[in-house]
Amino acid sequence: MTAKAEVPSAASALPMALDAVGGDFGALPNVEGAVLAARAGVSVLLVGDRVKLHAELGKYAGSSGLPLEVVDAADVIGMDEHASDVRSRTEASINVCTRLVKEGKAAAAVSMGHSGATMASALLTLGRIKGVDRPAILTHLPAKSGFTTLLDAGANADVKAQYLAQWARLASVYLRVVEDKENPTVGLLSIGEEDHKGSALVLETHALLRDMHGKTLNFHGNIEGRDIFLGTTDIVVTDGFTGNVVLKLAEGEAKVLFGWVREALGSTLKSKLGGLLVRGALRGLAERMDPSTYGASILVGVRGLAFIGHGSADARAVKNALLRAARAHEAQLIPKLEAAFAQK
Amino acid sequence: MTAKAEVPSAASALPMALDAVGGDFGALPNVEGAVLAARAGVSVLLVGDRVKLHAELGKYAGSSGLPLEVVDAADVIGMDEHASDVRSRTEASINVCTRLVKEGKAAAAVSMGHSGATMASALLTLGRIKGVDRPAILTHLPAKSGFTTLLDAGANADVKAQYLAQWARLASVYLRVVEDKENPTVGLLSIGEEDHKGSALVLETHALLRDMHGKTLNFHGNIEGRDIFLGTTDIVVTDGFTGNVVLKLAEGEAKVLFGWVREALGSTLKSKLGGLLVRGALRGLAERMDPSTYGASILVGVRGLAFIGHGSADARAVKNALLRAARAHEAQLIPKLEAAFAQK
Repeated sequence: MTAKAEVPSAASALPMALDAVGGDFGALPNVEGAVLAARAGVSVLLVGDRVKLHAELGKYAGSSGLPLEVVDAADVIGMDEHASDVRSRTEASINVCTRLVKEGKAAAAVSMGHSGATMASALLTLGRIKGVDRPAILTHLPAKSGFTTLLDAGANADVKAQYLAQWARLASVYLRVVEDKENPTVGLLSIGEEDHKGSALVLETHALLRDMHGKTLNFHGNIEGRDIFLGTTDIVVTDGFTGNVVLKLAEGEAKVLFGWVREALGSTLKSKLGGLLVRGALRGLAERMDPSTYGASILVGVRGLAFIGHGSADARAVKNALLRAARAHEAQLIPKLEAAFAQK
Repeated sequence: MTAKAEVPSAASALPMALDAVGGDFGALPNVEGAVLAARAGVSVLLVGDRVKLHAELGKYAGSSGLPLEVVDAADVIGMDEHASDVRSRTEASINVCTRLVKEGKAAAAVSMGHSGATMASALLTLGRIKGVDRPAILTHLPAKSGFTTLLDAGANADVKAQYLAQWARLASVYLRVVEDKENPTVGLLSIGEEDHKGSALVLETHALLRDMHGKTLNFHGNIEGRDIFLGTTDIVVTDGFTGNVVLKLAEGEAKVLFGWVREALGSTLKSKLGGLLVRGALRGLAERMDPSTYGASILVGVRGLAFIGHGSADARAVKNALLRAARAHEAQLIPKLEAAFAQK
């Protein structure tokens, strides 16, 4: 199993709580993803309708021998419902997940369901790390060499400079602790590399980050949209509006561009022949651009691990999200974030 | 000449004023682009150092028979200088260009030089169309079918809702008049399609656009980053910060992705063979993504035609920018924009 290398040795100590009925396709991809993760050594609590989940699990021969357990949750917040419902619907699967984390019974809450509901539930149940005003969604985008870490990918449409500064710090600790990247560089997304260019928000944030440079993070300076795919900096920090537009544009453009490549390869007999020969080489590329490869984004800034995936996630994405959650737990991300912010 | 179809019949009435010494590569691509445009029937005033431009023109056999004329300008604003220099350096080539437009001696100012200086010069010399608070950069991005029109692509980092509403209207008239697109759809870039989602700016702009729907424009509603390449709406309106990030990300991503495709095609003997067969089919695609295809962006909202290109523009981009400028002039864009805004 190629993913074995990613699996933390002590992951079995605490299971991951998976919102197993959340997302566009309900239990199906969630249960399959959990089975794949369990086979790779990660134990999972499948949270949701007990009968439905047992029925789904029954499809996998030998699943009874895997580190999987069903935790009943009578309710689930639908993709079209309101995020604020998490306040009143305490038995919703996502609330059960975050409570399991709060109570120390699970290492992380992982959901492909309603992302607003996941954020709200995580924030309400787990609270914030001391020194963090607002949690942010941290995500990865493919870049020329490796990947770029982007935040906020959509949790906060309206922001203050201090939020961005805190997020840059959270991401710096995250990359060091979880991805073994020492002293990662931080770029502030702007519309020109010069210090004096950008919006009022960028100018104010730039000053804060410059003050933090060499102390709590490694500030590269302002970067532009083109730098995200070039991988000019390890981390790109921006407001949740711009970050969400970036994430969705990047995914949408890749999809359309690869569609055009496919079309072009089928346009003439000659290119069709060539297409057959290059298919294998291009497949690896498509995988590199596939959001499933990263599995899910992490909500950084809350006092506990919470991962938010695409509603349309497939089993591979669910599995990868669970593996990432296990790695973050193994790396003791939350205590290390708290320690970093306690130092001031 | 395939571009002939694009050439307006009466373009010779007034020449285009080209900032022929502006841009990363100075006179070279500008003069070549002007020669190409002139051969396609567009007359051009080459503005810049007289000696340098005549020397460059001398390289083209038969250029003396083309509708090209040199207008001397002793100064040029360098790419690393300050945009505000246009105030004091009245003999800078870009200022000469915009003055030629103001005085009715040229139809449009076209520059591949310092974009901030071009914007400042156009605004100072030509003024604003009545009813427009701030000019915006209108640009085109390739989309699934045809192209998407995006604005503001970077003129205004900090904005108000009313600016966005005015830009949506300017773009609607532009597409109708210059691109023969009747009743083009307007999408407001946000982070969720629902009316109640987005930043405070988006919520306020949404209300303004909803009021204008069916009267001065055709409002589709909020769209997301992924819709830009899907071409969900003809026009995408956003603030100049987000718009500039979108434009540069889109260009940067395309470059990196096509680089990966090329790499993949050269990775094995089999894919190399296939690569030779598909090369022709992919070349058309690369051209579709090449910013040179669109030539330059238009600064809408000023009282006169002003086009702003990439500093790294090649001769093809310069030529296409001049053809676009001629088409906008032929279509009487400025009087039609003024008439539309006069109606309230």
